[in-house]
Amino acid sequence: MPIPAASLSTSHLLDLKAYTASDLEQVMDTAQAMHKDPASHAQSLDGCTVATLFFEPSTRTKTSFQQAARRLGARGVSVGASGSSVVKGESLKDTVQTLEALQAEVFVVRHAAAGAAHFVAQHTEGVVINAGDGARAHPTQALLDLYTLTAHYPAVRDLHVAIIGDITHSRVARSNIRALRTLGATVTVCGPPTLLPAHLSDMDVHVTHSLQDALDACDVAMLLRLQLERQRTGLFPSLHEYHTQFGITTAHLHQHPDLRIMHPGPVNRGVEIEAAVVDHERSMILDQVAHGVPVRMAVLALLAAL
Amino acid sequence: MPIPAASLSTSHLLDLKAYTASDLEQVMDTAQAMHKDPASHAQSLDGCTVATLFFEPSTRTKTSFQQAARRLGARGVSVGASGSSVVKGESLKDTVQTLEALQAEVFVVRHAAAGAAHFVAQHTEGVVINAGDGARAHPTQALLDLYTLTAHYPAVRDLHVAIIGDITHSRVARSNIRALRTLGATVTVCGPPTLLPAHLSDMDVHVTHSLQDALDACDVAMLLRLQLERQRTGLFPSLHEYHTQFGITTAHLHQHPDLRIMHPGPVNRGVEIEAAVVDHERSMILDQVAHGVPVRMAVLALLAAL
Amino acid sequence: MPIPAASLSTSHLLDLKAYTASDLEQVMDTAQAMHKDPASHAQSLDGCTVATLFFEPSTRTKTSFQQAARRLGARGVSVGASGSSVVKGESLKDTVQTLEALQAEVFVVRHAAAGAAHFVAQHTEGVVINAGDGARAHPTQALLDLYTLTAHYPAVRDLHVAIIGDITHSRVARSNIRALRTLGATVTVCGPPTLLPAHLSDMDVHVTHSLQDALDACDVAMLLRLQLERQRTGLFPSLHEYHTQFGITTAHLHQHPDLRIMHPGPVNRGVEIEAAVVDHERSMILDQVAHGVPVRMAVLALLAAL
Repeated sequence: MPIPAASLSTSHLLDLKAYTASDLEQVMDTAQAMHKDPASHAQSLDGCTVATLFFEPSTRTKTSFQQAARRLGARGVSVGASGSSVVKGESLKDTVQTLEALQAEVFVVRHAAAGAAHFVAQHTEGVVINAGDGARAHPTQALLDLYTLTAHYPAVRDLHVAIIGDITHSRVARSNIRALRTLGATVTVCGPPTLLPAHLSDMDVHVTHSLQDALDACDVAMLLRLQLERQRTGLFPSLHEYHTQFGITTAHLHQHPDLRIMHPGPVNRGVEIEAAVVDHERSMILDQVAHGVPVRMAVLALLAAL
Repeated sequence: MPIPAASLSTSHLLDLKAYTASDLEQVMDTAQAMHKDPASHAQSLDGCTVATLFFEPSTRTKTSFQQAARRLGARGVSVGASGSSVVKGESLKDTVQTLEALQAEVFVVRHAAAGAAHFVAQHTEGVVINAGDGARAHPTQALLDLYTLTAHYPAVRDLHVAIIGDITHSRVARSNIRALRTLGATVTVCGPPTLLPAHLSDMDVHVTHSLQDALDACDVAMLLRLQLERQRTGLFPSLHEYHTQFGITTAHLHQHPDLRIMHPGPVNRGVEIEAAVVDHERSMILDQVAHGVPVRMAVLALLAAL
Repeated sequence: MPIPAASLSTSHLLDLKAYTASDLEQVMDTAQAMHKDPASHAQSLDGCTVATLFFEPSTRTKTSFQQAARRLGARGVSVGASGSSVVKGESLKDTVQTLEALQAEVFVVRHAAAGAAHFVAQHTEGVVINAGDGARAHPTQALLDLYTLTAHYPAVRDLHVAIIGDITHSRVARSNIRALRTLGATVTVCGPPTLLPAHLSDMDVHVTHSLQDALDACDVAMLLRLQLERQRTGLFPSLHEYHTQFGITTAHLHQHPDLRIMHPGPVNRGVEIEAAVVDHERSMILDQVAHGVPVRMAVLALLAAL
């Protein structure tokens, strides 16, 4: 199947704000085509150079993009590790323009600062894909989560997804709420009051501080990684207490026999999730990782292919 | 020559305990085929992804595996550097399962902990190759050392090899003793009493604390890298004294006109080996490095090719 | 166009001392062929392994060489990052011989020590390209600067180039002076007395401490990156004062309507160059970066192709 002419609502993928249900479905359909028959897309980005600019540590997202790019025939260049000029204090703008001059056409950007990918997009003629910017957005994570839901359930719009944990600091939560609501799914966010943002009412989601209430209502529990360094700032009392109140255990799986579990990784076993739940048959965590490759192939092909 | 259907005694290469003489010979024969005609194997692992997980620093072993994988047509992904999620405390198990979900099929693992490669093998459907785990095993080093001996001598079983230095902490020594004894070679280990392990009698080797005795008896002196940080713990008095008692010099080469030298690298010039000996025509050190590529091609092809 | 049989004056590219005008023109012509029709050179280095040994941080030079090597069909291996054995104290000589044994045929070397690339060349049968050694030479930077001049002006020999900044510590300045003088261009060096070397009279250049005088005379201002750590040693009083005396601003561009600007990067915006000048239409900075790829393709092909 040839990739359709790019018809997404945006020429970059910075967040999912402008993405319509039709955009999301197009990405899902293309990802499915990539998944079923990767070989027939092996030349989609032939000769294209994809630059990965990761200024925060990552294994799965970076490797996933690199695998996706190579499976489409693209070359990769990578910047952001300790050996690059970034340690000389080169500005992000200059790094991007340098890579563009070195013939990079696609920029995959992860950065601790919200807005970093938008900034990059303002300073390049190339295509920019946000791989996570601060607590703002992580759109390809939401797309692969959506793809994972599509693979396990007949219709996303009929689902109720509970997003559990540190909502305030989570770009994964923000992008997933956006995507799920666009498709008509019901979303509940759940966490301690100190980790829920103030403006949740704008997001059109249900809010609860009770894990029990969240699990009673939902089909899928999407757990967030707890940034352990938050503890020092007093946002939650102790890992043990967090686990007791918000950690998902096998007991929860027994109580809710249809409940499935998602987590963007890397997991803190024993904190937001009991180790045995990670490996449970109703955990979709490794599916999520695996789906990252076809979904990112789809995004790359839709945005960057000629 | 097509690679024979995999018929090694193990589906992973974790150590050489289960390897029979026939296994070792099969690797040697395959390596020779790879060495003579690499081009005809350029597609043996086409489309396969080989993940290198190096949690200890390495140039030669990592580069050697990467070259071997690419010469067979495989893609590589690499984890363990400062930019990966491993710095977030992700568990080795989760890293492996993540890479597997990202379509890695072969895992080449180096880790400071003995047993790390076995642990990985328990948590993946992929093929695991141990590239060094603590002081336990470094099987591909022993295989390339064997290949180097095969290239210089008519029959390994007729050889007497002296392994000299810090035997206690050496995975290279353990794997070489295993391989050499399996093929019937005679092995003497030589070092200061503080650097020889207690259970040597189980290993079916001769033991001496006299470098002179070892060199008088052997055809090949296989030197081990002295981990300089051991000095602080008092296991040997000084680098100078170590060199005086156990360092190989050109004087030794003159005294023993047929003696050849091996060293797994990186060498400490002037400690376990005089600088001029490294570069001597009877040094096989660079041969060992060069043989790493065909031997690792052979291991990859035998274990991972369809 | 096939690449001509290698006929440069040297078999390595360590500096430009031995390069005649004819050598420089040959590189320019080959780079132009690479630039216009890269696809027809896609197999020039097929099967060749190019090792990049970068012991100083770099984005543009390293990526540029990697892109160049891949566009010629070569494989790359990379050493020098935190994960290599170099952290074990392995000597540069042993690293090079190891990589050579691992089938690397071309060595691209950046090192803080002047003479490092020469040292490498003494210890390998392979081809060595200096990517910057201390304050001594950075020949491919000068070649791409020359290519950039050739692209914008009819004849380099008719140009007057002012090199402005910290001449003493600049390998870029040394290599550019050499190349420009060989082709007959006029060169003025300009900087504070503390940053100009003593032996400038040997270099056949004009010297001034007045930026105004330099800009009045020249066609092109080639700015050098100010190593900010020099400030601590008292070689210049403050960044502000340096910028006031030697920084190029849009006012200078207005005063000199034909003046063009070069900078090897990474720039310190607001120090040696006002931010708006970096992005000005008469800035050739991104051209320089872009030209790095075809020029390095040319160097690689001329030195390493069969």
